[in-house]
Order: sequence, then structure tokens, then C-alpha cells
Amino acid sequence: MSETTSILIKDTTILSDKIKKASILIVDNTIEEISNDLSVTDASKVIDGTNKITMPGLVNTHSHVAMTLLRGVGDDEELQTWLNDYIWPKEAKLDEKLVYAGSKLAMAEMIKTGTTTFNDMYFYMEETAKAVEESGIRGVLGYGMIDLFDDEKRKQEIKATKNLIKNSHNTANGRVQVAVAPHAPYTCSKELLSESKKLANKHNLKLHIHVSETQQEVNDLEKQRNQTPFEYLDSIDLLDENTIAAHGVWTTDNEMKLLKEKQVSISHNPSSNMKLASGIAPVSKYIKNDINVAIGTDGVSSNNNLDMFSEMKLTALLQKVNTMNAKTLPAQATFNMATENGARALGINTGSIKEGKLADIVLVNMNVPHMIPVRNPLSNIIYSALGSDVDTVICDGQLLLEDKKLLTINEEDAIYDAKLAAQQL
Amino acid sequence: MSETTSILIKDTTILSDKIKKASILIVDNTIEEISNDLSVTDASKVIDGTNKITMPGLVNTHSHVAMTLLRGVGDDEELQTWLNDYIWPKEAKLDEKLVYAGSKLAMAEMIKTGTTTFNDMYFYMEETAKAVEESGIRGVLGYGMIDLFDDEKRKQEIKATKNLIKNSHNTANGRVQVAVAPHAPYTCSKELLSESKKLANKHNLKLHIHVSETQQEVNDLEKQRNQTPFEYLDSIDLLDENTIAAHGVWTTDNEMKLLKEKQVSISHNPSSNMKLASGIAPVSKYIKNDINVAIGTDGVSSNNNLDMFSEMKLTALLQKVNTMNAKTLPAQATFNMATENGARALGINTGSIKEGKLADIVLVNMNVPHMIPVRNPLSNIIYSALGSDVDTVICDGQLLLEDKKLLTINEEDAIYDAKLAAQQL
Repeated sequence: MSETTSILIKDTTILSDKIKKASILIVDNTIEEISNDLSVTDASKVIDGTNKITMPGLVNTHSHVAMTLLRGVGDDEELQTWLNDYIWPKEAKLDEKLVYAGSKLAMAEMIKTGTTTFNDMYFYMEETAKAVEESGIRGVLGYGMIDLFDDEKRKQEIKATKNLIKNSHNTANGRVQVAVAPHAPYTCSKELLSESKKLANKHNLKLHIHVSETQQEVNDLEKQRNQTPFEYLDSIDLLDENTIAAHGVWTTDNEMKLLKEKQVSISHNPSSNMKLASGIAPVSKYIKNDINVAIGTDGVSSNNNLDMFSEMKLTALLQKVNTMNAKTLPAQATFNMATENGARALGINTGSIKEGKLADIVLVNMNVPHMIPVRNPLSNIIYSALGSDVDTVICDGQLLLEDKKLLTINEEDAIYDAKLAAQQL
Repeated sequence: MSETTSILIKDTTILSDKIKKASILIVDNTIEEISNDLSVTDASKVIDGTNKITMPGLVNTHSHVAMTLLRGVGDDEELQTWLNDYIWPKEAKLDEKLVYAGSKLAMAEMIKTGTTTFNDMYFYMEETAKAVEESGIRGVLGYGMIDLFDDEKRKQEIKATKNLIKNSHNTANGRVQVAVAPHAPYTCSKELLSESKKLANKHNLKLHIHVSETQQEVNDLEKQRNQTPFEYLDSIDLLDENTIAAHGVWTTDNEMKLLKEKQVSISHNPSSNMKLASGIAPVSKYIKNDINVAIGTDGVSSNNNLDMFSEMKLTALLQKVNTMNAKTLPAQATFNMATENGARALGINTGSIKEGKLADIVLVNMNVPHMIPVRNPLSNIIYSALGSDVDTVICDGQLLLEDKKLLTINEEDAIYDAKLAAQQL
């Protein structure tokens, strides 16, 4: 057995759809066996899983990772001001090199806090794809198309997405998947939205879009088209099981029915929705209606980090207080959102620790004061853990983090390059 | 100059009421000088402050620290069920030894996440005082009095507080202060509340009490007394600048006026209020009304950790979305809540980095992916930092944490003892 093809996680507490103690054998990029009969001679690399919670890698279903370079820009401003006066002027200065540096820094942060897959929408995505390839993480990457209702711009945007598909789709041993990503109903023409969906269908790709983030967006569309955002998107056949709608804050009851019927996935972004005062998404209502809802961090300028552990806790707490019911969104439901629901939204074979699943696995250290006692590992993960408790990360069968040290990214270089890049914005 | 009496923090970014670059000289337990002219020969111990944010130690204004032993008990249940069916039966089994173990573990967690002062209400508080003395942290400690309207019980409770004052007040070089802590208007008789305030006045102590946490509590009191909680407390002269009211979720406009007039301090506990679905406190309204409002974690069973960094971010985000205004509670206001407002509430000479203040100081590492770039150190502290970014902690002029290693607590022992203790509950 060669050195890189098998890993044994020995004697660990596995958190997936239930909690059990066992060992896990990974062969190539797949979870081969989970049992108590595995021996250290079964693998070339053995990881001690005692005092650790072993769980699926977290799935961040909505991000703009290169925005790490804009961390701290436009805090304490509302969405439209934040975009128009702070973010967009700086984004106009972006180039390939800057996006690469920002992406690499983001991947360092994501891996260190237990995220193994992210669903991204941004610019110069070939650079993000390159960083994914090098860092070993898994990414669904969409070029964020905005035509502002201009015909010429629309053609350019579609062309950019076609190029991204050609250059990057299904590369890095399948770790890079391309999605079609029209930015939002209020920034994209009907034609662009429609062509986007056709392009996605043609290549069997996911479609990633911002929908119903702010009340203003909903009101504006109502005035223009006398439709709600999801009704509008449905009228151009954009909604199906391959659609990932980020935010979904102002969804109406009628839209709920539509989302369920069309099997759309929602990416809930609590930090961003709270920080930009966009509103509180009806997450528990989505769940009651059997709508697949996952979690995202959004970009760091509206968060301001990529820590999915914070996002899980916030998701649960916000729904409890918003429904005035402490039983709302218990720990397991929240955990599912950040793992298997995310994987389902993105159509990837991860999100749980089961034989046959891709080996995207995170080990969390339990032997720290804020995780003691461990009465219920699931509770500790959702309500007590910090992202920094992540000790070991495996993605696609490859070790990316061990004893909190990045193995595929030179952290010092990533920090240095990102600092320099940020100075240019 | 002897080895333990002076510390120089060299060339650092100081975050207090404004941001500046300088060095800080600590002599004994006091900030002696802040300037750019300090030399390494001025102190017996030199700490390199480059790439670090140096800020006041965080002040946790409402805790039940020994409840670390109950971490993960009764998740996803509402306050009254949580108390009656989960927490109180276990608390009935507490003893001195268990409270000591739980307190020690909590102090390990608090120090590692940058808290230098906590305001606690619980049982066997002499044990918590002992742990404060040993660990070097600062604590305002109150025995949580509950008489359930029983005369005999009331006398016992008052006696227990008198004993605590005698045994522990103003010990550990002043790091232990005792407060008088009647639990809440719904668990304490009018006589107990009244005697509590007289006792506090006699010894010039703070009074720490839960007020207006749930709507049910407010409704019940309304039925019984036709008064709101703060009106009731005012009618027995309990409200003044020495009162710290935890929660204050359901405060009315009339109560706001009262709180301002009487200069009461509020301890806001966002995680706990959200997790128990108690409600969203009107924090921005308190601030608009010039009411001193600080931050607390509450006990870990309703949080489930003691990380004040999470609590700061949550405070800001929750107010923004609740007022639907992203400008609400900007970073500086949130930072003040967790530092100088907390110190003001507790009447201690900390909470900012100024010459003459007690040396309660925290250094946060900026050289990690999720803190890059540092466009605005204050923004990074409130919106990007994790509690685990704390690198160095000084309390009362003594180094408690260096390079993330606890110096006054044996972490392994604290974890071991707490695990054993938790098994007995």
C-alpha cells in the first residue's frame, strides 16, 4: 500500500447522523470502512482519534472567498450603501493576481476552521480554481454575472462563464466543479437569467444566485413586475433541484410552496443577514416545509470571517429567539444544515461519514477547557466549539491540516501575499 | 527592580477608546506609562507587542462560572423547563469540591479567551473565591439567594451572604469583591430583596440580580403586583448606581426612564437570551437613553461557552437585525460594552488602557488568516476574531497567559478534575 493512499482514524467519536465510537479507514479519496475491528496495519497513515470528535467536513454553501482582501471594509453600513460606496469601487480594481491571493488566504482560513467544501461566486474564478487545486479543498465555483440590463455586457458575462466551464469544470480530481452564477434578479436581465439556466442545463451544472436578500429588493421587483423574486424566477424556468438560492430572507408562503415543489436549495447566511440588517430568514419554516436549507458565510466583508462553527451556532440561536421557541432548530438539525444539506444542495457525495462517501473529514479537539465535559458531543460542536478547535482536516482523502498545521498551504506566504494584495485595493 | 513587578509591552497596537501605536509599562498592578519612548531596560519582563492588538481585558458582567460542569445539559429547552427539569435537580447535588472544580475550569476558559473580570452569582462562592485567588483572574462574587418566599430560608440566605462578605470580600489583593445577589424578583420575597439592598448599602457592595429575562416573568409579576419588574424593585429602593441587572429583555419605556434616573447598569446576555428564546433586549435603546449596558455570557448551559468575543459579535449583529439598521451598535460601541461599560457597572478601575488604570490587559494575535488584512483593528476584534486568538493575558499586573499557555492554572489538572466532578452531577 503506497504512502498516500490510505489513512486510518483510530478509535474516535464519530458525529454524523448519529454518534458512535469506531475507527475509519480511508482508501484513496473514499471512506472504505467504519468499524471497531480496524488495525493500525491496515493503513499507511494512522491518526489517533481519541479525545477527538470526527465529523464530516463543513460545507459553506455561499461565499465570495477572495473578498478576504476586503475584510473590514464598509462595516456598519446597509447592503446598498455597502455595495455602492464601499465594495464595488474596490472590486473594480481586482485582477487575477489579487483574486488568487485572496482565495489562497480564504482557503487557509476555511481549512483551519473545518470547511472542506465551499460554493463560491466571484470574479477571475480560474484563479480561485487554481488555489483550490493547490490547497486540496473542494470548491463549486461560479463566475458572478452582472449585466445591469445591458445586451453587450450580457454576452460578455455568458462568455466568461463558458470559458470558466471549459477551463475549470471537473478539474483537480473532481474537486473543482463549475456552477453558473447570475448575481441576482435585480442585477441581471431576464435574458441573462434565462440564458444562464439554459447553459447550466446543457452542462448539467448547479445554478447559484442571490434571491430575496433585502426587503427593498422584493419591493422593487414587486413594483416592476408585480411578482415576488421566486415567482419571477419560476416564470423563466430557473427553479429546480439544481438551483441554490442564497439568502431567501423575505420568502412568502406562496414562494415556500414553489421552492418545495421545485426542490430548490436555500443557503442561509445568518451573520451577513444580521450584519447588513437584511432580516431574519424563515429557516425553521423552510425545514417544516421540507425545503433543503444549508448554511453559508457570505463574503468576509459582511461577516467578517469564514468560520462555519460560528455560523452553525448563530443559525440555531437566531431561529430560537425569532420563533420564541427554544426547541426550534435543535443541535442535530443545525448540524445537518452545515453538512448533509450542504452536500445535497451542491450535489456532492460528502456531508456524512458513511462507507462509500468521499473522505471529507474533520477532527475536532475535545480536550480544551471550553469543550469539557463532553456530555453530548453534538451539543459541544454546535454550542461550545470554536472554529479553532479543528485539529485535523482531510479532503478527498488528502490530509490538509494536522495538529492545526496547514500541510498544503504555506500559511506565512499566504498571509504575506494577501497583505500586499489588500494594500492595492 | 524585582522580577515580578514590571512588564513592558513593546511596540504594540493599542485598542481602547481610540487606536494608537505605543509601548505600555506596567509597574506592580498598574499601567504606569504609555509612550513610544519606553525601552526594554525599563522592565524586568518584556513582551513583544508587534503584530498584536493590545486591549483591555474583557469584563463578563453576568456568569455562573461553576456551571461549566453542566455544559450541554438541557439544550433546546425553554427557561422554565430548563431550570425545573434539568438544571435545578443537578444543582441540588453541588458541593464545595464540585464548585471549586467547575470554577477552576471556567477560569481556564475565561483567561484563554481574554476575560480578566467576571461578575458571578452562584453557590459555595468561597470556593470560587479560592479559585480566583489561585488563578489570578478578577471576580465580583455573589451568593445567589433564593428564599422562595419562605422566612426561614430567607434568614439562611442572608446569613450565607454575610459569611461570604466576611470570608472573601476584598481578598486576593482586591481581586475578589463580594456582591449581594438576590436571584430574581420571582424567586425572592420582598423582604429578602429589601434586606439584600440594605446589606449591600451597609458594606458599600454591588447588588447583582436577574430582572425581566422572560415575558412570562413580567406577566406573572404584573398579575401579582400590577407592576413591571423594575418598577417593583424601585418601590423597594433597590435601584441605584450599584445595581447590576442581568438580562433586562422586556424593559418598558417607563422602566427605561427609571433605569436612567437611578443609573442602574444592565448586563446583556445575547447567547443565553437567544438560546432559551427569552427575547431580544433593547440594547440600542438603552444606549440611546444613556443607560450603562455591558455584556455577559450567563452560565455555559445556556450559551454554551464563556467566550466574550463571540458575545461581542453577537451583540452587534443581533441589534442590527433587530432594529433593521446596519448602523446600529457600531464596533466601538460594542467594544465599549465589553470593556469600560463592564468596568463601570462593577465599579472597578479597569476597562481601558490608560495610565493609572489597573493592568488588566489582553494581547490578541493578528497574524492568523482570519485576521488578515488588518484594515481596522477594532473591526477585526469585533467581527473577525475568535476567543482563541488571545495570546497573552495580564490581570492585576500578573501574567496569566503567555503564548496561549496558562501560567497560573495547570490546564490538564483543571480538565481532569472537572471531568470527574461533572460525572457526579
